[in-house]
Amino acid sequence: MSRIESITITPIAFRDPPLLNVYGVHEPWALRTIIEVHTESGHYGLGETYGDTQTIQQLRSVAPALKGLDIYQLNSIRQRIQDTIELPDPDAGLEIAPGTLGATTVPRIFSAFEVACLDAMGKITGRPVYDLLGGKVRDRVDYSAYLFYKFGRHQFTDDPWVDRWGEALTPDQIVQQARKMIDEYGFRSIKLKAGVFEPAQEIEALKALRAAFPDHPLRIDPNGGWSVETTLSLLSELDTELLQYLEDPAPGQSGMSQVSAATPIPLATNMCVIGDFHLRSAMEQNAVQVILSDHHYWGGLKATQDLAYFCKVWNIGVSMHSNSHLGISLMAMTHAAATIENLSYACDTHYPWQDEEVIKGGKITFTEGAVEVTDAPGLGVALDQTALAQLAHNYDTCGIRARDDVSEMRKYIPDWKGTVPRF
Amino acid sequence: MSRIESITITPIAFRDPPLLNVYGVHEPWALRTIIEVHTESGHYGLGETYGDTQTIQQLRSVAPALKGLDIYQLNSIRQRIQDTIELPDPDAGLEIAPGTLGATTVPRIFSAFEVACLDAMGKITGRPVYDLLGGKVRDRVDYSAYLFYKFGRHQFTDDPWVDRWGEALTPDQIVQQARKMIDEYGFRSIKLKAGVFEPAQEIEALKALRAAFPDHPLRIDPNGGWSVETTLSLLSELDTELLQYLEDPAPGQSGMSQVSAATPIPLATNMCVIGDFHLRSAMEQNAVQVILSDHHYWGGLKATQDLAYFCKVWNIGVSMHSNSHLGISLMAMTHAAATIENLSYACDTHYPWQDEEVIKGGKITFTEGAVEVTDAPGLGVALDQTALAQLAHNYDTCGIRARDDVSEMRKYIPDWKGTVPRF
Repeated sequence: MSRIESITITPIAFRDPPLLNVYGVHEPWALRTIIEVHTESGHYGLGETYGDTQTIQQLRSVAPALKGLDIYQLNSIRQRIQDTIELPDPDAGLEIAPGTLGATTVPRIFSAFEVACLDAMGKITGRPVYDLLGGKVRDRVDYSAYLFYKFGRHQFTDDPWVDRWGEALTPDQIVQQARKMIDEYGFRSIKLKAGVFEPAQEIEALKALRAAFPDHPLRIDPNGGWSVETTLSLLSELDTELLQYLEDPAPGQSGMSQVSAATPIPLATNMCVIGDFHLRSAMEQNAVQVILSDHHYWGGLKATQDLAYFCKVWNIGVSMHSNSHLGISLMAMTHAAATIENLSYACDTHYPWQDEEVIKGGKITFTEGAVEVTDAPGLGVALDQTALAQLAHNYDTCGIRARDDVSEMRKYIPDWKGTVPRF
Repeated sequence: MSRIESITITPIAFRDPPLLNVYGVHEPWALRTIIEVHTESGHYGLGETYGDTQTIQQLRSVAPALKGLDIYQLNSIRQRIQDTIELPDPDAGLEIAPGTLGATTVPRIFSAFEVACLDAMGKITGRPVYDLLGGKVRDRVDYSAYLFYKFGRHQFTDDPWVDRWGEALTPDQIVQQARKMIDEYGFRSIKLKAGVFEPAQEIEALKALRAAFPDHPLRIDPNGGWSVETTLSLLSELDTELLQYLEDPAPGQSGMSQVSAATPIPLATNMCVIGDFHLRSAMEQNAVQVILSDHHYWGGLKATQDLAYFCKVWNIGVSMHSNSHLGISLMAMTHAAATIENLSYACDTHYPWQDEEVIKGGKITFTEGAVEVTDAPGLGVALDQTALAQLAHNYDTCGIRARDDVSEMRKYIPDWKGTVPRF
């Protein structure tokens, strides 16, 4: 009865503001894929993952092979995926989203189905997903205000839609953005996506944030946009009073390791440690002191717990990374995070940047910067089929098939490179 | 409905042959504790753990605090135990059974309840425990023939019982023991408990085993009974043809690390890595290449999976350690082992050394050295209340309250020391 009867895979697109990063600027539409796993018992479970063509093709290529497998037998499902999927070059994929690289293929594809199976399992047993993961250690999961430099609006689209956040290109505008986001969501810590402007200007923004929000822990994430040399030269401007942690200043474990040796500020990453296969070398080099997990490419919610266990053993921090996502992913993150005792920092989320939803009831509410887990079965969310149809229509018509912030930026700056490190 | 209504804790004793080890000799009775967790839904789950007075007192001290907790909320149960239990000195406990040391208190006590909760959860959902752990990756779990030097019978007891294994004090007798055990159980690998005689004599036994069983992987476990110097001097007699791995030759991570640097033979341990807190230093020193887990003190079946994950990340081996135990523990080990893809070696078990059982149907059958996991709900075993009453009666009358191989050996050899390293 708990065997998989059918799987529905629906690519979707939703509006995304022109958020800036080291690679370029977000396109007008962000892509995701919604996975529905239907069981013979008449239940269904939901998953959400990347929406680039490669991921969609991979999901579709394995789905038929999963029919008939039992949703409880996650190890068999993972094995079946591993046996079925065509493995691309480990480096193939989107540099901008390391979670889409070839090296993450099996855990990334498995994750989408694992979350859906856990959701279905929860619905069948009447249990919230966190109970299937050993039970919650907290009722609410903290997220951080994820600030972006951004243009006021997309310049190269016919879509009249304009986001409600306004332009943010200066330290003052970043502080304004933070204030608006904190007013609305209650976030109690702040992350600034960086690597966009000269480091001095971004540090100025950090200091403005510190002055405006003296009690909010701050982080900055240049996405590997600073060279080791540049990062080392900036360390005199940065300290543990200003920064809770410094995320991916320079690219690669070796570079991070050199920075790490020169500063007491913890270094965090979602770029140079993107899978189990990266952990040992990172620890041996003391490359990072915080690992930002992401169930979408670490291999699911149980794999996120595994990573947290590793971090506990090694006595380093663990928190969560985010890409543009909707409510299914938010609740999956929240259920996993609720079970992880050593979760060290508020998790990242892009959630405030999206107005649209695919779940019933619309956008999930944050209170004091946190999302509450409920006792509802599974993830506690239901699919809004009307919204899904609309977002699927967006996908069909938006013309974007893989995120490409570099090309989008070239519309604004024709000779834009989009390579790291920039500074 | 899945809340804990009551907990029954029953110390038991069963006959144990006079098995020799570096500390001394097994007493005529081995102790265990049987845990029954009864839920409001009318189900029950079983756990089995150590039976020394300290463990029994600890189990009893926390049990009342667990009433009303939900069996799914294992993290809350662990937390409640941690908040309730009186923590002894980390080094307090039985040196002979490192799993009983004070440092393992919370994981050890939690484990007994975790297994029982998983068993009950399985009965409630109609699922085998392995399905609650992500599903099996194998149908049968291999165990090894666990050979012991032994006396022919206990000399200092009025009990007329004599075990069916006979004396084993010479290489020839060890080969005979191996043959009998392999004939009966079909084991396909062999472990020799050592540290009893001069190392040269034990290596002679190993070589006799190699000659008699050319295709069976061999291991030897002196329980830290050799000094580093002695071990180093023996390495010219040992190689990877003779030994699959060398278990705890010398005591302590530092000693093991020195041995490790001098041999290509993998070193295994259940002594110098007995909890999460030992992992990092062991890896940093390259002290061991195989960790022998034991859910009884690592913190349960999920914790065993966690450890296996760590070993996968660090690219070292993982298998399972054993103490004298009955069928509940055997099935708990088997369910966990069935889910661990990177289980590298056949697991240890003392099971052939015991004739008695506490589960319905009597002793569990081995086929070709393996135990099969079935699709029966929970652990797939039921408590035989008549047998339990008999074994509880044994406990009440046997007079033993904590395993003490040293004192038992002093009955044979009055000036016996029982300290390690011996050689």
